[in-house]
Amino acid sequence: MAKAKKVSLLERGQRTITAEVGRIPIRSTLDQSMTVQYAEQLQNLVALARSVIRDTDPQNDVITLGVCSKSDEIIVATGEWVLAVLQHPFLSA
Amino acid sequence: MAKAKKVSLLERGQRTITAEVGRIPIRSTLDQSMTVQYAEQLQNLVALARSVIRDTDPQNDVITLGVCSKSDEIIVATGEWVLAVLQHPFLSA
Repeated sequence: MAKAKKVSLLERGQRTITAEVGRIPIRSTLDQSMTVQYAEQLQNLVALARSVIRDTDPQNDVITLGVCSKSDEIIVATGEWVLAVLQHPFLSA
Repeated sequence: MAKAKKVSLLERGQRTITAEVGRIPIRSTLDQSMTVQYAEQLQNLVALARSVIRDTDPQNDVITLGVCSKSDEIIVATGEWVLAVLQHPFLSA
């Protein structure tokens, strides 16, 4: 099963960015400019999502954020760190 | 299977909002003030997600947006209309 899983991740063109909250990314499989651009934009998106959540429940917090578009899927896990995974939404045929 | 599915939706406290893009909501299972607040905030969130997506690919667009928090899950489907579904992330025990 592990091999099949690894193949499916690679086929979905998975790229990852790890960053400390509100800071410059630490690790990324994207080039430098894309990494900095995505890291900043995704942290703004998480901050806006957090404000939406906390407007109704100040004790609540965002755990994950997902954006599915026509050609990409972005999943952001938040906490002490921010981990963003970018991948194609569907396995290539 | 249909009954089990219906039960699981109700147990997850599902609430929905339908709105024309950029306009006041048309249908909602939430009260008026919560509906207007969520509709506006979620459309801002979709707009920001759209700008993140289109910065790298102007032809691309957001299909769905999901925010999972400690106590709620918000799923927004975009297109001609905006449909937002709010539910508890896990089935109540």
